[in-house]
Amino acid sequence: MAIAFESLYSDIAGRCGKLTVGKKTIRTPALLPVINPHLQLVTPREIRSMGVEALITNAYIFSQSKQYRERALAEGVHKVLDFDGVIMTDSGSFQLSVYGQVSITNTETLSFQRDIGSDIWVPLDIPTSPASDRDTTERELGITLQRLAEAHQVFGRDAPIAGPVQGGSFTDLRERAGREVTDLGFSFCPIGAVVPLMESYRYRDLVSVVMAAKRTLSPSACVHLFGAGHPSMFALATAMGCDLFDSAAYALYAKEGRYLTTHGSFRIGELADLPCACHVCRTHTVEEVRTAPDRDRLLAFHNLYVTLAEISRIRQAITDGTLWELVDERCRGHPQLLAGYRALLDTTATLELRDRVSKRRFFYRGDESCRRTEVFRYQQMLSRLVLGEKVLIAFEGGTRDEFSDTLFFKPPFGPYPKELKETFPIGPSELPDWDDTMVRTGCRGIHVLMESHPDSRFVVLCNPRWEAIVRGELGTIEVRNEPV
Amino acid sequence: MAIAFESLYSDIAGRCGKLTVGKKTIRTPALLPVINPHLQLVTPREIRSMGVEALITNAYIFSQSKQYRERALAEGVHKVLDFDGVIMTDSGSFQLSVYGQVSITNTETLSFQRDIGSDIWVPLDIPTSPASDRDTTERELGITLQRLAEAHQVFGRDAPIAGPVQGGSFTDLRERAGREVTDLGFSFCPIGAVVPLMESYRYRDLVSVVMAAKRTLSPSACVHLFGAGHPSMFALATAMGCDLFDSAAYALYAKEGRYLTTHGSFRIGELADLPCACHVCRTHTVEEVRTAPDRDRLLAFHNLYVTLAEISRIRQAITDGTLWELVDERCRGHPQLLAGYRALLDTTATLELRDRVSKRRFFYRGDESCRRTEVFRYQQMLSRLVLGEKVLIAFEGGTRDEFSDTLFFKPPFGPYPKELKETFPIGPSELPDWDDTMVRTGCRGIHVLMESHPDSRFVVLCNPRWEAIVRGELGTIEVRNEPV
Repeated sequence: MAIAFESLYSDIAGRCGKLTVGKKTIRTPALLPVINPHLQLVTPREIRSMGVEALITNAYIFSQSKQYRERALAEGVHKVLDFDGVIMTDSGSFQLSVYGQVSITNTETLSFQRDIGSDIWVPLDIPTSPASDRDTTERELGITLQRLAEAHQVFGRDAPIAGPVQGGSFTDLRERAGREVTDLGFSFCPIGAVVPLMESYRYRDLVSVVMAAKRTLSPSACVHLFGAGHPSMFALATAMGCDLFDSAAYALYAKEGRYLTTHGSFRIGELADLPCACHVCRTHTVEEVRTAPDRDRLLAFHNLYVTLAEISRIRQAITDGTLWELVDERCRGHPQLLAGYRALLDTTATLELRDRVSKRRFFYRGDESCRRTEVFRYQQMLSRLVLGEKVLIAFEGGTRDEFSDTLFFKPPFGPYPKELKETFPIGPSELPDWDDTMVRTGCRGIHVLMESHPDSRFVVLCNPRWEAIVRGELGTIEVRNEPV
Repeated sequence: MAIAFESLYSDIAGRCGKLTVGKKTIRTPALLPVINPHLQLVTPREIRSMGVEALITNAYIFSQSKQYRERALAEGVHKVLDFDGVIMTDSGSFQLSVYGQVSITNTETLSFQRDIGSDIWVPLDIPTSPASDRDTTERELGITLQRLAEAHQVFGRDAPIAGPVQGGSFTDLRERAGREVTDLGFSFCPIGAVVPLMESYRYRDLVSVVMAAKRTLSPSACVHLFGAGHPSMFALATAMGCDLFDSAAYALYAKEGRYLTTHGSFRIGELADLPCACHVCRTHTVEEVRTAPDRDRLLAFHNLYVTLAEISRIRQAITDGTLWELVDERCRGHPQLLAGYRALLDTTATLELRDRVSKRRFFYRGDESCRRTEVFRYQQMLSRLVLGEKVLIAFEGGTRDEFSDTLFFKPPFGPYPKELKETFPIGPSELPDWDDTMVRTGCRGIHVLMESHPDSRFVVLCNPRWEAIVRGELGTIEVRNEPV
């Protein structure tokens, strides 16, 4: 296979992996900066010196350019762009989504991409807008899948061809697309036409569309979220299992005088200070950037630095098993990202299946933390505990002879036997003072125990502060307030 | 007065201000890097080139140093350190806190600081540990206050002398200290001996101690949080009204191979990637930093960059009126910071008094946002609405003739007349889908209306989804589900 992907570490559904394309290898998650040959605020060589291993450029622009077409065919795209890393080329689909038509066919664009020496080729898929109706979406998905099949027929299954997943805003069509792309044998699968969702802050819909595609894509496929270039949403997308992003934003925003941060964008004119650690921001005042003759280039550098730093932050979070914490941090940056995050938490039962067993820690960051995969998994596991007839669940204090078993209590997880005191997630979890949501969630763990151990009798020993919550969650359970 | 402070913009109790020391001016909030003349991983000149306007060094070290004492007296501390910005000098109090004694008196250290040309002098206050008992704390506070009085007597009220606020962990003593320091006429007031609280993550106690001091300090005093050098807590401290921080951490951490971030510290050995946009992190791999001969210096640069970037981020947040959002972002980074944040939210009624009226926006970031000053203030204001006999509060839909007034509803604020639809906080607030806590908080606004308008009858028109919450919060109010 010309394109191979290997996941090395994972957290939630996110992966740190290795993408192999021919003889080249890149680390994922990765950002592929978009290079427009006609507009290079930052050169590919400069981008390479920032440690970037792959970029994406547009084969259609090359194919239509008097200036670049013949040179690219003669010298190859790597030489023209002066970049020795992985170069992925888009097919003209983007132009199709903007202009409604292109003057190239599927096999023509793929041949051209082959001939200029691109490392990853993209067929002429139809990027159906999420606003399209079902009939249009279904019909266009059919065309896309046909072109993917054609690509394999004409160029062979070993050609380094991407298999984009379309389907607009219909989750069943995204599922179908994921399934058929997988059946066709594609191992590099961009999820396409989500830009309109991101541009209108429809992160809840983005989550449902991406989760749908991921449900049917092979876990061993490398997933590129096409057009995702704003660092504020990389963590959310990674948590769902997206591995690659591409950013034209760093340059397009720069040309409009816009300054990227992981918590949103600013117009340079509205900044009082440069809230960033990058080289541009630590060696210039905001006034200097604003009035610099090379303002756009300075902004493009800044935008790239923060975007690449976010990729590093995500890799570190996956390595540590703290990706939920990063998703929580980023998604609170905009209320609609928070809506997307909450929608992701609705899929915890699905995410838990792929989540890893042990992590560096569990830091409680607010109510949403109660819905993390680790809490869900821990509570599932409780049904497997072997318990005697009379079980004490002690929120505080120790064991007592009259009980066959004493369990302790750590919200939001719930009851635990002392043997688990040091293990993940009980041991390396840190909480502020208990709050209602935390304790209520912990009670759900007691509930699992009660359901799975119908022959045991349970008594909860707790501070009066929690009694109402315990009774509210567990009904008729015996609750004692006194020290046992 | 030798030291003057002016607040230019404010948000919560935080200020963007201008501190004038003699003829020099610095912008606040500001970070004063700590310079140890014997150990300069980064030189003051390099620090100056990063835009740093003030630093702090230790006069006691100079006074005891064979290498530096006479030079500093002859040439002045600015020349010795090669720094033309504001230099603040500590007195030896730090050594007192570590070694229990110092070989210098209060007037000796102040004279020495004067003689080496320091811009801000610190008396030999007693930094009473938060672990000290009440008697010790009270006795040592007495000595500190005596020395502050002596400082003014000997050097005059116009000498640029700081008035540290001590009082250990006793809030009434911190209040007394704040009051007496203010009465003595100090306009530059460090809050001292809080490092042990920060080192042990006791942010809840930090909030109570700082809020106590701030209650009695003059609003026009510039407040320095002594020894606060970790960027993760600057936003929280700024929200309480701290203006200056000092960081030895950038260098001390670097020497231990530790890497600062706004969400915590890492040992360089445990990083898989460098999760930062700074120049060091974008031009080195983690392996290169780890094995570099000048590793400590590289880490010190990185640590400074992120620390200074956080100061910029805070200034921007104050300018925009988004400091609550930044506090929320940072404080969720560690469960004990979250505990501190929640403790700060307990003081909303106090903070609201100084908070500004209009802000750029209100972004909902989770349940804690319901307890922000803007929500509290808005609901207070509701009692001033003029209303007729029969008032409809429409969660959805429009007006109806049978009611004298129709109010709309936007949680977490509550009811609003259409005239306020575009104004802060109703207009520029953005929410994810309504949740229980949000609606419950909005009902408190209805409650304020009902209490303040006993002659009006209120009817709530809402979706069945919210009926139980509305009834739970408002008791016998009439709730209609049908479209009116």
